[in-house]
This record gives sequence, structure tokens and C-alpha cells, in this order.
Amino acid sequence: MGELEKTEAANLREETVAGNGLIHRRALLRTALFSAGIAAASAGTARADDSVGADAPEWMKTPGKPFSAYGTPSHWQEKVQRIFTIAPGRAGTGVSRTPLHLLEGTITPAGLHFERHHNGVPDIDPGKHELYIHGMVKRPLAFSLDALMRYPMETQIRFIECSGNSGIFSQPQAAQVTAGELNGLLSCSEWTGVKLFTLLADAGITKDAKWVIAEGADAAAMSRSIPLEKCMDDAMIALYQNGEAIRPEQGFPMRLLLPGFEGNMNVKWLRRLNVTDAPVDARDETSHYTELMPGGKARQFMFAQGAKSAILKPSFGMSMKGPGLYEISGLAWSGAGRVSKVEVSADGGKSWGAAALTGPVLPKALTRFRMAWNWKGQPSTLMSRATDETGVTQPTRAAWIAEYAPGQGYHFNGIQSWDIAADGTVKNVYA
Amino acid sequence: MGELEKTEAANLREETVAGNGLIHRRALLRTALFSAGIAAASAGTARADDSVGADAPEWMKTPGKPFSAYGTPSHWQEKVQRIFTIAPGRAGTGVSRTPLHLLEGTITPAGLHFERHHNGVPDIDPGKHELYIHGMVKRPLAFSLDALMRYPMETQIRFIECSGNSGIFSQPQAAQVTAGELNGLLSCSEWTGVKLFTLLADAGITKDAKWVIAEGADAAAMSRSIPLEKCMDDAMIALYQNGEAIRPEQGFPMRLLLPGFEGNMNVKWLRRLNVTDAPVDARDETSHYTELMPGGKARQFMFAQGAKSAILKPSFGMSMKGPGLYEISGLAWSGAGRVSKVEVSADGGKSWGAAALTGPVLPKALTRFRMAWNWKGQPSTLMSRATDETGVTQPTRAAWIAEYAPGQGYHFNGIQSWDIAADGTVKNVYA
Repeated sequence: MGELEKTEAANLREETVAGNGLIHRRALLRTALFSAGIAAASAGTARADDSVGADAPEWMKTPGKPFSAYGTPSHWQEKVQRIFTIAPGRAGTGVSRTPLHLLEGTITPAGLHFERHHNGVPDIDPGKHELYIHGMVKRPLAFSLDALMRYPMETQIRFIECSGNSGIFSQPQAAQVTAGELNGLLSCSEWTGVKLFTLLADAGITKDAKWVIAEGADAAAMSRSIPLEKCMDDAMIALYQNGEAIRPEQGFPMRLLLPGFEGNMNVKWLRRLNVTDAPVDARDETSHYTELMPGGKARQFMFAQGAKSAILKPSFGMSMKGPGLYEISGLAWSGAGRVSKVEVSADGGKSWGAAALTGPVLPKALTRFRMAWNWKGQPSTLMSRATDETGVTQPTRAAWIAEYAPGQGYHFNGIQSWDIAADGTVKNVYA
Repeated sequence: MGELEKTEAANLREETVAGNGLIHRRALLRTALFSAGIAAASAGTARADDSVGADAPEWMKTPGKPFSAYGTPSHWQEKVQRIFTIAPGRAGTGVSRTPLHLLEGTITPAGLHFERHHNGVPDIDPGKHELYIHGMVKRPLAFSLDALMRYPMETQIRFIECSGNSGIFSQPQAAQVTAGELNGLLSCSEWTGVKLFTLLADAGITKDAKWVIAEGADAAAMSRSIPLEKCMDDAMIALYQNGEAIRPEQGFPMRLLLPGFEGNMNVKWLRRLNVTDAPVDARDETSHYTELMPGGKARQFMFAQGAKSAILKPSFGMSMKGPGLYEISGLAWSGAGRVSKVEVSADGGKSWGAAALTGPVLPKALTRFRMAWNWKGQPSTLMSRATDETGVTQPTRAAWIAEYAPGQGYHFNGIQSWDIAADGTVKNVYA
């Protein structure tokens, strides 16, 4: 062991921020630490310099593939797909999930944005689609797509999360499935469109109006009641997703975007906004998306998604490749605003260290966190907990479970845990 | 005209910030202005309230399409494609452009990211690909993709622009083509990968090293000389693009990302980084990508892309739909850092008003700007000019042209102009 390595080993001990080997986030920038653990052991292979790369690989010996009008992922990535609970190709009601554990960064590719359909994806002719604003307004209005395109636009990076996301954690046994299966009713896009405030102000809201009933142009006529206050705040009629026209599965040609509110309220294929003085008790706010409480009553209209986080690397289906330095990484988010802090524990919640957050940290957007971990091969329990700018921190799973009737699975935001065994396997546990 | 409209009309006069009807950016948030100009005249159609939406469109009457494993744009958007100069399906050297005028926001969908290939797109087996770091280093290293995946990662939203982008403006006649054809060798993505500093520090740079020769694993073995200083600053080995594995056309399984530097240096399919004390005079830094100066000499190694902007709405191929309020919108960027200001002129550069910038304004990333315009139907010349945080402002086209030999088209960043005729047609002009 040379002088440099000795110094680094000493630094490593000094920089421990929590039990079981969690290191200060500045270690993520300190190369020699990772080098000692990784490059020399498993990655770096020294070669005589003049022979480096002398053998050109086969794909350098013949011209490559041609230009394409609209690109697709590499065929080597064909397993990176949305995750289905019912077989693909079947219409109707159901979901598909974003494979969060196979992705990085914070933007979800549009092709992998989660789906939630109540009667399939309508094929809407954008030239015939109209958005109506009516009810308690001075001037009922109809907007073609072309008319909406004339309005000033805004652009926001925001997550959408189904309120049923991670509901599987309400079950008594921890499911041994991937992080995408656990948490993949969650995606994040750059949305561009017209501020709903602009359109409602044009229509002229009357004095007693309090709610807006949003209806989609799908075969379920999916409808939700939305507080007028939210519609006048940061709601958007989204027309673009990650730069291009919004995708069919996310509401082409337009959807309602209610930043931070449960996914179902962000009505896709948006067709009508009926301004009223009371909620409508639509099917999807009575038979679904309500919280069953211990007393047997259901709580309705819990809109904002809670502060939440999930470790994606490592996670179920991956395995640790022997002792050494690792980056733990995952996503954090809150429907109430910005994530202000993410803490990680490697000892089942006994001690916590602050993770590095990838900037810019945006309100109601996914935030990537990263933590350096010196894993010495001991069995460990990894956890993450997010705190948002309103000061709210994720509860433990037990505390969350205690609030509701057994099996109630909407709005789960409890702390999640991965057990790392001595052999490197990763298991979902209720710690 | 009611009281509200009278007040708004008065406000409109007061809020003029530049000639020919440019209005203060706060007007973008003032709905009644746009209502007066748009919704009542062309978009809003009042209806008896109880009949609104009574006729459900055909796509609500039958179940929609099923779930899909990897989504694609709506078939109604099939014309939103990359723009080719040579026919698609042909391999070899050439480009395809991002259709900037058909997009919104700042992120480029990966499927529409511009392409620049020197001998086609190699089909690289990621399990067999290696990245070598060699030359003036203490420990030559080889990294498999798995090995790189073990390193700490970072995520950055950054643009890539070909240094030949907008070169057509060096021609004597203004081309009547779309904004995408003019400026579409420009795209912006969220990139995630390993900081190059980390790997070079692992390898151990020797004292006299000054350059790094990057080579791609394509059939052109595309190579560029890069100052070591840049490699130790904000360079990244990018593995992910907009959340998923980097696309084949952008370098799968890995590319070099040199934020703000000309596109060609961001070597795709990255295979070798040879640390040296001198540049290598590679084909693509001698026969191409040099600037021919008036005296007949060529200037080499002009790396950073200049401060630049382009109005995309309105632009060639669109037309104004009669007098009224419009949002002018476009993109601004600079290889030197953040865009600090974008100004718009509607009178051919006689007067300028500050546009609104869509936040967060990130360094070396595309920034969307928006400006309110009260077009009264008069012939007008629209221009935009960006200033970056280093204080550099785009030159006029004439000033830019005067710097170089005739026809030199690399690194064009002069001010661009659209003529709006009284009938609403839009034309590219040298104003």
C-alpha cells in the first residue's frame, strides 16, 4: 500500500458520516477512493501503452448504420421496457410502470413514462379535438389546438405519480420485485403548455365558483373534481412533453397538469373543464383514490403527493460485486415543493448521513440523490428518507401503516429498506 | 368595448418596451390581453352551457388502444422528423437536423437529437466495448461498461451544437428554409455519466501532459485533440441521455461530453483517450472544423460555441393569422455559460426589448425565451440577440461575416432576422 492509498484510507475513516460505512458526500468527487475500491480491482487493466487499442473491434471495420428519421434505443437495450401487470397489447383499465431501476438522471424518456388507462388510449384527431371551459363562467369557451397554440406558454419540469404508487408496501409481506415494480407509477418530464389561469381568466369565473370538473376524451370519460384554487395556481394545459407533442399514452393532444397532485387528477386527453360550486363525486374519486381509515370511513380528496424517496442502486435484482466503494443512488420528490434533504442509512435507521442532491433541485420534480458507501461485506440495511421544503419528512412504514385501515394502499410514502446480504444479494424488507 | 378592455388597451400602450408593438414580458401573464386578441376573435366560441360537449367524439365510444412496452409519438405527428440533407437510409458521412421549429421547451427528445456521422452508426456490443486511457499516464487503464457503472455519476442538462450549425448564413443569399434547417444541428439533453476528471485522476496524469486525443469506435475512427484543462474541468463520459442509455446515434454505449465545446469534439462511441503533450492534427481538426480567415490562413482549435439565439415562432413556413397579440418564442444558448439576457426587436434592430427567460437558466444549456407582441399587421423585421454571463452579445451578421474569408461557415453566431409581410408570411432576410 503506497503513501497515497494510506492517506486515502485514513481520510475514509475520518469522513464517515453514519454507521456501516456511509461516507461524506464529498467522497463522490474524490477519485482515489473509488479507484482503490474499483478500478484496480475489477476494472482497470494495465496494458503496454503502444499496444492499447491496436485491435480495432469489428464495428470499426465496416461502415455503420444509416441516418434515421426518428431514433430508437439500441437493440442491446430491448429489455428496458415499461413493466406490465396485465399483458401488453390488452386494452382497458390498468397500468404499466417506468423501470426506474434501469434509468438514471431525473427525466423519464417519454417512451417509458408510466401508463394508467381506464379504457385504453384514444386515437384523437388533433384537428377535431376541442377543449371546453363552461359552467360558472361569464363566457363559455371552446379552444381548438390551434387556438391554444396562440397563447403564451410556460415550461416546467414536474413529476407525475399515481396515488396508488408503492401501494404494495401496504401488504403484510415485503414483495421481492424490482424498484420499478415497487415505485414505477412515477415519471418526470419537461412539460410545456398554457397556464390554466390564463384560460379561466378569459372565460371569467363567477363569484361562487369553487371547483372545476375535468373530463378526459377517453372511452371512460375519466373525470375528477379539482379545487378552483389549484387551477388558478400552477395548473397547466400541457401540449408538449420533453420537447415534442405530448405522447398518446400521456394525453395527446393535451392533458391537465396539476403539479404535485396525484396522477389521476392530471386528466389526460382533456376535453371539458366544468366550473362548479361543488365536487361531482365522479367514479374515480369515490370508488377509487380514497383512503380507507381505521374506523371504516374513507377519506376523500387527499390531493398532494407526500415527501418520498427510493433507493434504486442497489436494489432488488442487482447484487454487490464484493466489498469496496459504491455509489448509492435514488430519487426523491414531494408534491409540496422542493426536496430540501435526503438522508441515507446503512444500519437500518440507527444513523443517517446526508446524501448529495443533483441540482438544480426543482419544486415538484424528481431529484436524484447520491451517497458514497464503503461496504466491507457485512450484512446491512439501506434506507433513504426525504424531507421537503415545508419541513415534512417521510414517516417510517410502521407509522404510515398505523394511520390507515389494513390494506389501504393509496399515497404510500413510508421509508423503504433494502437488506444487503454478505453475499451481495439485495432483498426488500420491512425494517 | 367594456371597462376591462379599455383598461387593458391603455395598459398595452403603456407597456410597450420597443418599436413595432413589443410589450413588456409581464404581458405574457396578463390573460385579458391575449383574450382580446385571440380567444374572442378566433378561438373562443360561446355555447349554451347545458349542451357543452353533449356530442361525444367518436374516440369516446369505443375502448382505446392497449398498453405498449415502449411508446412512440402519435401517428398524427409523423411529420415531426429529423431533417435530412441526404436521403434517410444512406450510411456514411453527413448530418440530420433537429426540427427545432416543431418543438417546444428546451429538452430535445432523443429520437430527434441531431446526427453527425463520419461513417455511419456502429452497432457496438456493450459487453465487448472498452474505454482505454493511456499515453502520458502513470497507470494505463481499460474500463468495461460495468466498471464505469461502479463510479459516482453526475447529471447535467447541456446542449450540443455542431460547429457547422447555421453555416448557411455565410452564404450571400438568405435561404428560405425552416428554422430547423437553419439551426437544427443543435440539441439539448439531460446527460448522466462519470466525470472524466475521476478517471484521469485514477490513471494519474504525468507532469508534461497537455492534450487528450479522443477516438471513437466508429468506422471513421473519428478523432479530436482536446485540451487537458477541459478534460479536468466539466467533461463527462456520458452513459445516459434523458434518463435512458445513450442512443446509438449519440454514441451508445458512451460518448465524451464537453459542455459548450463544438459538437464534433464530443466524441461518440468513445474508445480511446490518449494523453499527450501535443495535439494530433487529426483529419477532423485540419480538413474540417477550422476557420478560414480573410488573409487565407485557417484558424484552428476554436472550441467554445458562441452566444447565440434564434426565433422559432414565428419562423419560415408559418404565417401570422391576422393582427393581434402573439407570443414570439425561441432558444438562446452559449458555450461560455449561462444566457443572461435575450433581447428581441420587431423593427429590424432599431429598438430592443428584454424577453422573458424560462427558468431554471442553466449553464451551457438551451434557454427558452418568450416575448409578447402586439402585431397590428404592419410589415416588420423580427430579430433576437443573446448575451451570456461573460458579457458577450451576439454580433450582427455583417460584423460576423467581416471577420472571415468569404464562405467560411463554422461557428456562425450572428443575429438572425425574419421579415413579416403584411399578409403574415415569414421570410428569412439579412437585415
